[in-house]
Amino acid sequence: MAGNSFGNIFKLSTFGESHGKALGGVIDGCPAGVELDFVTINKELNRRRPGQSEIVTQRKEDDSVEFLSGIFEGKTTGTPIGFIIVNKDQKSKDYSHIQNSYRPSHADFVYDKKYGFRDYRGGGRSSARETVVRVVAGSIAKMLLKDVKINAFVSSVGEITYDYQNSKVNFDKIEDSIVRCPDKKTSEEMISLIKSIKKNGDTVGGVISCIIRGVPVGLGEPVFNKLHAELGRAMLSINAVKGFEFGSGFKGSSMKGSEHNDSFNASIFKKYV
Amino acid sequence: MAGNSFGNIFKLSTFGESHGKALGGVIDGCPAGVELDFVTINKELNRRRPGQSEIVTQRKEDDSVEFLSGIFEGKTTGTPIGFIIVNKDQKSKDYSHIQNSYRPSHADFVYDKKYGFRDYRGGGRSSARETVVRVVAGSIAKMLLKDVKINAFVSSVGEITYDYQNSKVNFDKIEDSIVRCPDKKTSEEMISLIKSIKKNGDTVGGVISCIIRGVPVGLGEPVFNKLHAELGRAMLSINAVKGFEFGSGFKGSSMKGSEHNDSFNASIFKKYV
Amino acid sequence: MAGNSFGNIFKLSTFGESHGKALGGVIDGCPAGVELDFVTINKELNRRRPGQSEIVTQRKEDDSVEFLSGIFEGKTTGTPIGFIIVNKDQKSKDYSHIQNSYRPSHADFVYDKKYGFRDYRGGGRSSARETVVRVVAGSIAKMLLKDVKINAFVSSVGEITYDYQNSKVNFDKIEDSIVRCPDKKTSEEMISLIKSIKKNGDTVGGVISCIIRGVPVGLGEPVFNKLHAELGRAMLSINAVKGFEFGSGFKGSSMKGSEHNDSFNASIFKKYV
Amino acid sequence: MAGNSFGNIFKLSTFGESHGKALGGVIDGCPAGVELDFVTINKELNRRRPGQSEIVTQRKEDDSVEFLSGIFEGKTTGTPIGFIIVNKDQKSKDYSHIQNSYRPSHADFVYDKKYGFRDYRGGGRSSARETVVRVVAGSIAKMLLKDVKINAFVSSVGEITYDYQNSKVNFDKIEDSIVRCPDKKTSEEMISLIKSIKKNGDTVGGVISCIIRGVPVGLGEPVFNKLHAELGRAMLSINAVKGFEFGSGFKGSSMKGSEHNDSFNASIFKKYV
Repeated sequence: MAGNSFGNIFKLSTFGESHGKALGGVIDGCPAGVELDFVTINKELNRRRPGQSEIVTQRKEDDSVEFLSGIFEGKTTGTPIGFIIVNKDQKSKDYSHIQNSYRPSHADFVYDKKYGFRDYRGGGRSSARETVVRVVAGSIAKMLLKDVKINAFVSSVGEITYDYQNSKVNFDKIEDSIVRCPDKKTSEEMISLIKSIKKNGDTVGGVISCIIRGVPVGLGEPVFNKLHAELGRAMLSINAVKGFEFGSGFKGSSMKGSEHNDSFNASIFKKYV
Repeated sequence: MAGNSFGNIFKLSTFGESHGKALGGVIDGCPAGVELDFVTINKELNRRRPGQSEIVTQRKEDDSVEFLSGIFEGKTTGTPIGFIIVNKDQKSKDYSHIQNSYRPSHADFVYDKKYGFRDYRGGGRSSARETVVRVVAGSIAKMLLKDVKINAFVSSVGEITYDYQNSKVNFDKIEDSIVRCPDKKTSEEMISLIKSIKKNGDTVGGVISCIIRGVPVGLGEPVFNKLHAELGRAMLSINAVKGFEFGSGFKGSSMKGSEHNDSFNASIFKKYV
Repeated sequence: MAGNSFGNIFKLSTFGESHGKALGGVIDGCPAGVELDFVTINKELNRRRPGQSEIVTQRKEDDSVEFLSGIFEGKTTGTPIGFIIVNKDQKSKDYSHIQNSYRPSHADFVYDKKYGFRDYRGGGRSSARETVVRVVAGSIAKMLLKDVKINAFVSSVGEITYDYQNSKVNFDKIEDSIVRCPDKKTSEEMISLIKSIKKNGDTVGGVISCIIRGVPVGLGEPVFNKLHAELGRAMLSINAVKGFEFGSGFKGSSMKGSEHNDSFNASIFKKYV
Repeated sequence: MAGNSFGNIFKLSTFGESHGKALGGVIDGCPAGVELDFVTINKELNRRRPGQSEIVTQRKEDDSVEFLSGIFEGKTTGTPIGFIIVNKDQKSKDYSHIQNSYRPSHADFVYDKKYGFRDYRGGGRSSARETVVRVVAGSIAKMLLKDVKINAFVSSVGEITYDYQNSKVNFDKIEDSIVRCPDKKTSEEMISLIKSIKKNGDTVGGVISCIIRGVPVGLGEPVFNKLHAELGRAMLSINAVKGFEFGSGFKGSSMKGSEHNDSFNASIFKKYV
């Protein structure tokens, strides 16, 4: 298996299966001298954790990260940051009922076909639990990128959509909502939809929106590794993500050139010239 | 500038600006012994060419590719395939009117900011003309991937949408339509919409759909470099692309899990076990 | 810090400092189904370990490896193999005497200059202890490369040189010698030289020779990534290695073309045609 | 074939065969604004050229480079620099005598075995002529690295050795000697040795030494991609190179630790603290 790394200068490599001893990662390329806030890292891990509220899966993954290298006296040293998240309940439950069958909508069949080898203990490497490693690396990246503000929230659940304007989203309200939609009324509708669907043993999809501010002009490489191409790749590598759009997105496809034109904003532009 | 390469095993590196001497590419990793059909390569170049019909830009780019290495007696040798497409009219027109101003919706400002250096002759490296190199590499890739069938067509222009089912698209009809929508009626509506918008000096967006058949099970890497993550990155690296979806796409976000479930198709499955 | 990975298809990334919690590694790209012999892995770790005999440093590094992922029922699964070697005595001794000075012949000064940050607990990331991770990965690589036979031995210590012919080295005798020279007489001379130098509190250099058999024809890439260029890079990345030669090596520089010519060996050649 | 690129930030990819239309390269990552001195680039190409003097092969390769991209008004633009060197006499001579046999000491057999395909027109991709591309990239790199002084010279031919001290080599004398040894007496001995060997239709090996000054402290990555490991890989990737040493080199292997110790030079050190 290849493709377990992401990034060039700040590069994360991940390892681990949902039912192995531990998941872990190595961050190569984090500069020296970044002060780490371990409380925040754990808070981010808790935000990812299943079982946080009544509207999500009740599976419990009580995660804490152990750093093994790259940190001295609370600061990064510039050397690779190795870390693990121990799987507290690594004992496979009784998996004998799926040992001889593939689960639909899962990677079981494809892994078996690709590697000629089956680890039948749950999702293994294809489990979305792998993202726990990305959360640790992402929260360190945020500590490094002080001036870049990244805020994501749920903007759709099923047919219920929060119709926001970028400049008017109240990011402080995101965490107030168990579904993480900053608009109170929409959030309540989303929660009640999820509850009613959950009652029938079903689930429902949604859309996450992310607003990034403070990005330096010219970030990303201009041809293949455009900023949005790399962002798209990152998002599409998360389990169950089926689409990615940025800027005007698919809506832009029905706009005229005259409407879509990206004219200079004189007041912002002045800052750069 | 980094990021001028794409791919790992079959890797394309591109170079060239819209108003330089030539655009070109190097394909590293193409196996030896692939028989190249140069007529098809030129046909693909013609399909990309602006100025083909009355509904597109009338700019003329009459391109032909010259291969410099990696081919012997009509077959690839396994060594890197270097090639160039000479810019026939490389003389910059009079660009003095834009030499001191940045065009909106273009990369002029960002390039200047990022590199501290301005090549004011048109789009330069940021011109969509760079895709001419991708067309050459893509058509060689298709000759290598004999069993994989890749067909793309226009499925939306503005609000006009061709509502197709994957298994019913008649790929043979794509080239019959100057807008490249295989459904005759929709194609005519799209063309007449474009004509009316063009009359007003405006343009309109659209959506391209692509159906890929014959893909081996397990293609792509399971974590970061998932097949669809790499495809997404590739598509999002094309100028003006604002979104990418695959499978159920954004529609999937409003579906219930029970509807979205990807159950095994017994007759297809039988082939693999 | 970049550059903590080696290899393309079978890729090792390493992390950890000599006085941190653990050293570790991630092997990405090991095929599924390789049966691992954990006894052999530990034997290889013991062969690397300082303090094995009276002629080497008496520092104790009693290492054992803990695998965290990529293995199921004793076989590799194809997913990344994460592993750690806990630093048993991670408590830094009293390093206050070197906290304010750089040790000559060490990387202390250069690290401080490069990263603007000093981890003064011993060598840290620049410690040769990092090679413990390479030993684990190397022994797994050997299990994968069953037909390739790799044997290294000490061929020089100071001025004492074992003047061997490739086809006559008795690899079975290497481990009989604490200095790991398979020729008994030379080995004894080397040992007695080291002992006499050690008595004076000094050390002495040496040369390691390696004979690799069973290599498939055409291994390596023909231009920049030639087999011997990659081997050279690997060897030169080990602490204190100052030179690398292969084939005729530096001796070849004083040979005539007619002597150096690499003619085909008819009996070997027959196997391939 | 993979492995036709070298470098990470300033990356060169090369293509072309000795008897194809052209050799060429793409430099990705050269910063914008570097003023190129085309006279110097051509001078460097002439220094590489076979047939310069009576002591080398009389084959003629009269090379000139044509730049296709990445340069505007004599300066680099930051975009990839594509360039080609046309093979002036690309018509294969009559190669029918080697079409059915492999030349010893050449890559013919190995290429055929590896790629299952034979381009029998001379060395093809394995020809040392590929280095012409490296010369172009190297001379641009030198224009970028103004403060780093790189000087190479011939220090041995056969058994004749110029026994120099780093600080006393007169780099200005290198080009005065057709064998490029800056010591007049040794140079004459080398030339007369080569002439006498050439008379017998034979050739002889040699050693090239290189002294690099002005290198910033901390250049290179500390673990796998050490500066000398990368330099070694680069040198070992040049045809016919059989060994690489740096610093004390193989001589260091017979030194005692007390002699080999790399103590700080107070006067140099002062500059950094």
